Amino acid sequence: MKKIDISVIPGDGIGKEVMPEALKVLETVAEVHGGLSFSFKHYPWSCDYYIEHNKMMPEDGLDQLKESDAVFLSAVGDPNLVPDHISLWGLLVKIRREFEQVINIRPAKQMKGIQSPLVHPNDFDLIVVRENSEGEYSEVGGRIHRGEDEVAIQNAVFTRKGVERAVEYGFQLAQNRRGHVTSATKSNGIVHSMPFWDSVFESVAEKYPDVKTASNHIDALASFFVTRPQEFDVIVASNLFGDILTDVGAAIMGSIGIAPAANININGKYPSMFEPVHGSAPDIYGKGIANPIGQIWTGKMMLDHFGEHELGNTLLQVIEEVLQDGIKTPDIGGTSSTTEVSDAIVTRLKTLK
Amino acid sequence: MKKIDISVIPGDGIGKEVMPEALKVLETVAEVHGGLSFSFKHYPWSCDYYIEHNKMMPEDGLDQLKESDAVFLSAVGDPNLVPDHISLWGLLVKIRREFEQVINIRPAKQMKGIQSPLVHPNDFDLIVVRENSEGEYSEVGGRIHRGEDEVAIQNAVFTRKGVERAVEYGFQLAQNRRGHVTSATKSNGIVHSMPFWDSVFESVAEKYPDVKTASNHIDALASFFVTRPQEFDVIVASNLFGDILTDVGAAIMGSIGIAPAANININGKYPSMFEPVHGSAPDIYGKGIANPIGQIWTGKMMLDHFGEHELGNTLLQVIEEVLQDGIKTPDIGGTSSTTEVSDAIVTRLKTLK
Ligand SMILES: CC(C)[C@H](C(=O)O)[C@@H](O)C(=O)O
Ligand SMILES: CC(C)[C@H](C(=O)O)[C@@H](O)C(=O)O
Repeated sequence: MKKIDISVIPGDGIGKEVMPEALKVLETVAEVHGGLSFSFKHYPWSCDYYIEHNKMMPEDGLDQLKESDAVFLSAVGDPNLVPDHISLWGLLVKIRREFEQVINIRPAKQMKGIQSPLVHPNDFDLIVVRENSEGEYSEVGGRIHRGEDEVAIQNAVFTRKGVERAVEYGFQLAQNRRGHVTSATKSNGIVHSMPFWDSVFESVAEKYPDVKTASNHIDALASFFVTRPQEFDVIVASNLFGDILTDVGAAIMGSIGIAPAANININGKYPSMFEPVHGSAPDIYGKGIANPIGQIWTGKMMLDHFGEHELGNTLLQVIEEVLQDGIKTPDIGGTSSTTEVSDAIVTRLKTLK
Repeated sequence: MKKIDISVIPGDGIGKEVMPEALKVLETVAEVHGGLSFSFKHYPWSCDYYIEHNKMMPEDGLDQLKESDAVFLSAVGDPNLVPDHISLWGLLVKIRREFEQVINIRPAKQMKGIQSPLVHPNDFDLIVVRENSEGEYSEVGGRIHRGEDEVAIQNAVFTRKGVERAVEYGFQLAQNRRGHVTSATKSNGIVHSMPFWDSVFESVAEKYPDVKTASNHIDALASFFVTRPQEFDVIVASNLFGDILTDVGAAIMGSIGIAPAANININGKYPSMFEPVHGSAPDIYGKGIANPIGQIWTGKMMLDHFGEHELGNTLLQVIEEVLQDGIKTPDIGGTSSTTEVSDAIVTRLKTLK
């Protein structure tokens, strides 16, 4: 029996609604598999937790998580309760950084049963590999002067090591996909960091002569996600550019509510973290209509991570079948509730036993 | 007779094809008006010019331009001839900076006669006000160490003055539109410059109690351009965010070939520059199929700039009529040539005399 220990952090808002559904699905997946079992350890860390304890997680929080094989997180943050920079940097970004989850991967593909907002989605199927530890999100900078002379400086710090491992990850991924990597750059406007990014990209590319490459400026690239997403396979991008592209990727899929993501620790020192693209959506929290598919598909990425590709693919197929049956939450044009969707997935999975 | 002196820089690639068409249209507009005349002075500054003179423009180039009322530029750059950082920063960005064109404005609206790539474009009509002089495009930064330890640092510099005037411009514009301004931020991830941006935005907003405001993170905002563009009126954005949003804006209109832009000098010291969003498109140059509408609509923004709103609106209407007649270049699904489109616009304009 293969046993996987998972730290579960539902977080805020709809995170609390979709997480139980995803766990239910994962448990069913384990049953279907037969030789797999999950053990879930729950952590209530969230804005509510902050209000009670004045911190997003206990002092030894990371030590607690460290023992598990993976962190399964839903959504963090609710600006009505706690300022974003406290909630996000105290939990989500903190785990990404401290656990050296230096790569963020986010697939986007046209799903059967969902209407894309694009007239011609052309069956796109891409994955963004986002540098997840430095770049534009470096905490380096500050302000000088006050009043009308005030100046704020933000330092985007790009290290060769940091860029290289992200780009490298992209090339390796492409070898198991359609063999094409696109670099997101902006070296025509951002004249120090982006030419550096380009040079690292080119030097890594030389090591993969079989992989085709392209380079697009982020402005053009974001627009190509709208006009011809089918042309992309793997895209490697900086922290900020990856952030933007993956939201556009989620949009062309039909809803941010279905987009999955994984924060990968590549040196094996710490657990990786699986966390959908969507946020806590306080506006729809409590209505029972949050789309659970982002969280469930994120669970599929966790299965992939543990080598369970076949089962992962089965799960994704079952999700598509349920969508094609019209069992959908309102964000993708349906009338079903959160639990109706996950129940339908569970029911279909059980027939595979 | 109102006489307007315009410096004309066709630049590279399709710039050389669309510029003559736009001038032809502007001349017709002047005829229709009766009391208006343009005088065009042509400058061949481009990558070809660089190859001959080892610079993108003569030493006294800016002095030459300075005398005119406006600069009308098409597209600069052709990486096959001259590296982008030389061509763009030696001409396009140089003029923006030296002529203190601190604001870049770019409308995006659903045009009659063009199929948007969106299933539901919902008649969107927005305008992005982009800070055009600092921020992520600051030339501040560099590299340290070599080899595997190399680090590149890019400083994004935001001044209160710089942000304030861009935001202010947005609010003033909104007062003559639908009274709504959205701020593009990313203060949840970029922790020095973007919270500063937010605070400037909020302090300017206080001065305009009648204007409604919203603030969205750039990732979400870029995706909203795909899912619900009709909700936006004026968007104020940093140099980089404005760059990205306006390319997505062009994409949802149906082609980057139609998107117009203006670089505005707001202190009256130097001419403003009118320049479409598209580039020089070396891949289609010489085929006679470049879309002239971006350049012509940019001419319309120049008319607006000189107070000729009525005529500007007429021109835009004529453009839409021609599109509805199906006279379109291939990028928007037609079979017409560059000149067929502009000739049709000229013909229609002449009937208005
Ligand atoms: C060519 C480049 C420097 C420029 C920019 O990013 O400003 C272009 O993309 C634009 O939007 O005008
Ligand atoms: C919440 C925010 C800090 C985060 C990011 O920008 O990384 C989010 O947008 C994401 O993409 O996971």
